Amino acid sequence: MTAQTHRQWRVAARPIGRPLLASDFEYAEAPIREPDEGEALVKTLYLSFDPAQKSWMENVAGYRDPVQIGDVMPGRGVGVVLESRDGGLRAGDLVEGPIGWRDHAVMPASELKVLPEGVAPPAAMSLLGTTGATAYLGLVHVGKPKPGDALVISGAAGATGSLVGQLGKLAGCRVIGIAGGAEKCAWLTQELGFDGAIDYKSENVRSRLRDLCPKGIDVFWDNVGGEILNDALARLSVGARVVICGGISRYNFDARDPSQMPPGPRNYFNVVFTGATIQGFLLGHYEREIPLAEARLLDWIRKGDLKFKADVREGFEHAPAALMGLFEGGNFGKQMLKVGEP
Amino acid sequence: MTAQTHRQWRVAARPIGRPLLASDFEYAEAPIREPDEGEALVKTLYLSFDPAQKSWMENVAGYRDPVQIGDVMPGRGVGVVLESRDGGLRAGDLVEGPIGWRDHAVMPASELKVLPEGVAPPAAMSLLGTTGATAYLGLVHVGKPKPGDALVISGAAGATGSLVGQLGKLAGCRVIGIAGGAEKCAWLTQELGFDGAIDYKSENVRSRLRDLCPKGIDVFWDNVGGEILNDALARLSVGARVVICGGISRYNFDARDPSQMPPGPRNYFNVVFTGATIQGFLLGHYEREIPLAEARLLDWIRKGDLKFKADVREGFEHAPAALMGLFEGGNFGKQMLKVGEP
Repeated sequence: MTAQTHRQWRVAARPIGRPLLASDFEYAEAPIREPDEGEALVKTLYLSFDPAQKSWMENVAGYRDPVQIGDVMPGRGVGVVLESRDGGLRAGDLVEGPIGWRDHAVMPASELKVLPEGVAPPAAMSLLGTTGATAYLGLVHVGKPKPGDALVISGAAGATGSLVGQLGKLAGCRVIGIAGGAEKCAWLTQELGFDGAIDYKSENVRSRLRDLCPKGIDVFWDNVGGEILNDALARLSVGARVVICGGISRYNFDARDPSQMPPGPRNYFNVVFTGATIQGFLLGHYEREIPLAEARLLDWIRKGDLKFKADVREGFEHAPAALMGLFEGGNFGKQMLKVGEP
Repeated sequence: MTAQTHRQWRVAARPIGRPLLASDFEYAEAPIREPDEGEALVKTLYLSFDPAQKSWMENVAGYRDPVQIGDVMPGRGVGVVLESRDGGLRAGDLVEGPIGWRDHAVMPASELKVLPEGVAPPAAMSLLGTTGATAYLGLVHVGKPKPGDALVISGAAGATGSLVGQLGKLAGCRVIGIAGGAEKCAWLTQELGFDGAIDYKSENVRSRLRDLCPKGIDVFWDNVGGEILNDALARLSVGARVVICGGISRYNFDARDPSQMPPGPRNYFNVVFTGATIQGFLLGHYEREIPLAEARLLDWIRKGDLKFKADVREGFEHAPAALMGLFEGGNFGKQMLKVGEP
């Protein structure tokens, strides 16, 4: 019943200090082994893409376990269980987990989570999993939003940013998104209920922030870094919280050699006049909180309170291109790749 | 009994985007008026100097009430009450307050605080007042030191830095100071009990921090900014707290024009991997906590637990030079100017 071999993408080179190249990935086929006790054989349905995956390949920063050249490219996805040798999983279950870039995987059942009843894979990948937990826990624990706060988000039309904004609305904030292009900005205000949007490609971010946040920014969620972060730091209110979640503008520099890195935000010193806080968020530091986050998100999903946009490409062969596209702002919503049918 | 005129220094120009010049100050003499009800006539004994005074003159940042050209140069000091028309003060009282650069001042008694019994003016100016409250409240509320933490301080031989280090020792931290020159470093380790010192003029700060903080920096207190801040951000532990108190390396740039400001810390993004916090401290946000801070500090002063070094110049005519010297690292300990005798 199962295929005898499976397809996979392996890490072929470390993209340190430069953009990703197609040659950083190597296509391969490999046999499918039988699951051992406690393991399951999963057929991949979707792969999920995140900018942090480039950092994993670089193996420089402290994100996760080291990736070796020749390893299957790490990444999360959704699959269907074909065979299970674990009491917690049955054939036919839809599961989410660190499947990696392969169309079949034998892996510990403990690393797989059954999708909640009634939540389709694109919704689960956009609103639950690491995206959902990052948005919820980062906003709650680091952003600490209060009703009436002005919450500004960079990379607002991305998977994390668009969810942070919707959670901010649920928390009673006035939400402003910064995104690239009129279409993304219209989606934020017309579909997601953001109170305002700034198109960084055609507008002056600094002056628009002044107009849209006349009393200053209370919470700034940063996925971008660079000049957008710097412009936001110029507008902080007293006691503001800045959540550093990502820095897409920095990912093509060589973090091993600090002199190669782009400058930091000149306006950091405004934290003195405002008593503001700049704090990083890494999901790994909040493992114990994830079940609570998932439960809250699931309630809202079932009530229809959370929207998402899935940017779905098709075909396992396009996995490298799907990841590379993230760094060009090509995706609109959560980037995912449809790999197979249940 | 009182002089008929008094000497004063006025603000003559705004030193924006450049170092201070002697011509930024104008010497003048003016009549002494009689105190009104609720006021006191004070004879200045000492003036106190702080890098923030340059920012006050620039009138750019949000530090305090605007200073106008022609105003008496603002600043704090210690004086003796010559006449009082307020029930809370008596002639002969030693008082601390925002006297400004003048050798006599008529001012509201409510702005003056009587020095605690047995604490001489140099000790009061070094360990109490704004210096003491900044060190205590910034460390407690932003640095949040725990026993065993590695606490690193830049500008460690200055008035605030040397007190922060001693308070860190009282809190059970391992304390490392960064200062300029062997003499200052020896003072930190041999007199103040710091566990280590780094001479930024002759040593590689980055590699010395690696040696002295093998498990990372838990609390970093920054008075300097620039490359020293950047080097510290490269060494943060998980959950580290960075207190931005000052940025002496930045004070000669033009804050009105962000493009003129020096780059921010490239390594700010390490807060993601560490979940660390970078927070500013401004004493004005903690007004209500100041009495508690003073009471704690006074206990330690009376027990002899806190040391200080007063860098005392003499002569009212040297006030501009005393302030300018701060920006050249010329002072060793709290810079003050002796203006008169009681």
